Amino acid sequence: MSNSFVLVINSGSSSLKFAIIDSVTGDAMVSGLGECFGTPQASMSWKFEGNKTEEAVNTSENHHQYAISRLVDLVEQWGYNDKLVAVGHRIVHGGEKFTSTVRIDQSVLAEIENLADLAPLHNPAGATGIRAAITAFPVLPQFAVFDTAFHQTMPKKAFTGGIAKELYTEYGIRRYGFHGTSHYYVSREAAKMLSKDVNECSFISVHLGNGASVCAINNGNSVDTSMGFTPLAGLMMGTRSGDLDPGIIEFLMKKGWSQEQVFETLNKKSGFLGVSGLTSDARGILEAMENGHEGAKLAFEVFTYRVAKFIGSYLIPLDHLDAIIFTGGIGENSLPIRSEILSNLKLLGFIEDKTANADARFGASGTIATSELLNAVAMVIPTNEEFVIAQQSVELL
Amino acid sequence: MSNSFVLVINSGSSSLKFAIIDSVTGDAMVSGLGECFGTPQASMSWKFEGNKTEEAVNTSENHHQYAISRLVDLVEQWGYNDKLVAVGHRIVHGGEKFTSTVRIDQSVLAEIENLADLAPLHNPAGATGIRAAITAFPVLPQFAVFDTAFHQTMPKKAFTGGIAKELYTEYGIRRYGFHGTSHYYVSREAAKMLSKDVNECSFISVHLGNGASVCAINNGNSVDTSMGFTPLAGLMMGTRSGDLDPGIIEFLMKKGWSQEQVFETLNKKSGFLGVSGLTSDARGILEAMENGHEGAKLAFEVFTYRVAKFIGSYLIPLDHLDAIIFTGGIGENSLPIRSEILSNLKLLGFIEDKTANADARFGASGTIATSELLNAVAMVIPTNEEFVIAQQSVELL
Repeated sequence: MSNSFVLVINSGSSSLKFAIIDSVTGDAMVSGLGECFGTPQASMSWKFEGNKTEEAVNTSENHHQYAISRLVDLVEQWGYNDKLVAVGHRIVHGGEKFTSTVRIDQSVLAEIENLADLAPLHNPAGATGIRAAITAFPVLPQFAVFDTAFHQTMPKKAFTGGIAKELYTEYGIRRYGFHGTSHYYVSREAAKMLSKDVNECSFISVHLGNGASVCAINNGNSVDTSMGFTPLAGLMMGTRSGDLDPGIIEFLMKKGWSQEQVFETLNKKSGFLGVSGLTSDARGILEAMENGHEGAKLAFEVFTYRVAKFIGSYLIPLDHLDAIIFTGGIGENSLPIRSEILSNLKLLGFIEDKTANADARFGASGTIATSELLNAVAMVIPTNEEFVIAQQSVELL
Repeated sequence: MSNSFVLVINSGSSSLKFAIIDSVTGDAMVSGLGECFGTPQASMSWKFEGNKTEEAVNTSENHHQYAISRLVDLVEQWGYNDKLVAVGHRIVHGGEKFTSTVRIDQSVLAEIENLADLAPLHNPAGATGIRAAITAFPVLPQFAVFDTAFHQTMPKKAFTGGIAKELYTEYGIRRYGFHGTSHYYVSREAAKMLSKDVNECSFISVHLGNGASVCAINNGNSVDTSMGFTPLAGLMMGTRSGDLDPGIIEFLMKKGWSQEQVFETLNKKSGFLGVSGLTSDARGILEAMENGHEGAKLAFEVFTYRVAKFIGSYLIPLDHLDAIIFTGGIGENSLPIRSEILSNLKLLGFIEDKTANADARFGASGTIATSELLNAVAMVIPTNEEFVIAQQSVELL
């Protein structure tokens, strides 16, 4: 039997990622990106057999719809017309309704749109992508894979904030968590690398990218995670503050700051960018730090210290610890950031293997530290959310 | 030489606590409370030689000023007129200016008033108390002991939030921490109980009362603490939410909630009260839980889980751990809450001594758990902030 291929679509508010994924190997046969959708600069680009192609999106039609209809021709041109077995959509918010990947029908689509209240930028874009894909590929079954689904196993004590319960019952305010597909993927890969059943494995998964989150995984299940009701929670990120003393917001508003100013600052002008006063990009932070930039050094220290504190706190919900897993753009590639986090974990017994840490970059997995105290290791595992989307879509066929 | 006595004054926004403390033994010779100041129900009460006296405060004069001038007669009546050597004031906010207890002069008083921006309810009341005490006891030296001072040893990576640096440079927004006098006191007592030099001791001090905070103490110095820019940060408390996903506030405001509604909810209607839907009082929570109240059970679980997570995270800044210290009204007295926190620390190796835990209540100190893994213990130590205020005032004489 030949391998099955899945068209994976990730519809953002002003972007569209797409790929044709081999559901057995995880290889991307084609991968592409639409950017600046909704603006005159809108464009699409893709990579196929080593060649990169780019074209402008110049239409009065909705750009997401246009791009997905354009994929019909492109899929034929790439020779995957008869090889695709499904379309898999990455959807940000599944609320409490979706605890795993589902085949999309009208009621699922309606639910995704209903959840727009919780993800006002992302879920409507996801729903637009689904509708366009149903029109463009009417014979292919469509699946929705949710960023929140993996975290639906969290116990109530972990998803309940210290807030009035009416906020939960009336508005659904609780911890949902995001990056679920990534935490799911790297935990399964880590279990394989350890030759253990994932349902007997406990991990602390550390996804560090422009967005960043930590997840406590007990015997295969998410039991806590640092992102919350929104992706602004938890760790400090590229431009986001992470968790905050709410009294700071009250103080700023009493100083005359508008709601817009406050949340623009916390979402877009904080994190690496705000603390350093320089850049939201981790590589830029590291470079500037080497050149003696004080703000960059502080941003590096605050970021790594806060990651380490989350790791310490996520020992609490675990029965035991097999591994800390680093993933995401920063987690997979940044040696200085991983080193600093590990050196923050000295009381937990972690000792870095400097050679192994230097080797586990740019797509390579590896074990980079060991704690005899906790009988655990730290590993690097490149994430592959598209592979999960392809796999789970094919599993449900 | 006879013992020295200090009049300790804690001026709140609508209250005034006072006591005459033996600076050597810490015994309270008199202790009293003024309540409902600024309202027609204003009253003062005190306990002296086992007898409690109460009287109405019925005057058009400022109630704090009246009460402190009334203390002149009372001190004479109690026979301490010639025995007092100082007045020690508890002041909430010392900003970055005050890193230890100071003798009050005009410039100190001006600084305390300048810091009203950071503690708008507490510092003006504190300054009023100081002015009244200078008038009432003109011959006694006056000292200010700050709730924030002990935490001024925090490194920059611990006191910097993940926010734009301009918020610090323009407004002084950073982590200050509170309950410093309590964390200071119990860490010194713990070192004595362990027969070690406090400067070689590292602790996680857990002050659980109606307000609650955790402090990481490395070799005697505060290196991190859970309260932040304001006392709303960190742990869930009686009515306060603690740290929060700031996206929740943005969401509520987009739903039409006013700034007042949001912060009233987070300050006064959250925590034990909000999660349980029942009461802000830990004893009430425990009683209701025994009677099967689901909300009370959830509040208990969320509270204890979050305390345990802070303990896990505060291993990160420590070189080693000597002891976890429980203090404050809940920390000193609540067996079920301490037991549940300890059972959350199983991966850190803590094993509760149930008999010792039951014994260490109602004013008794004790070692209640041991971790062979971390070579550490958990202890209960009743706090005594007034003793610290008296001691430090006398030391500076």
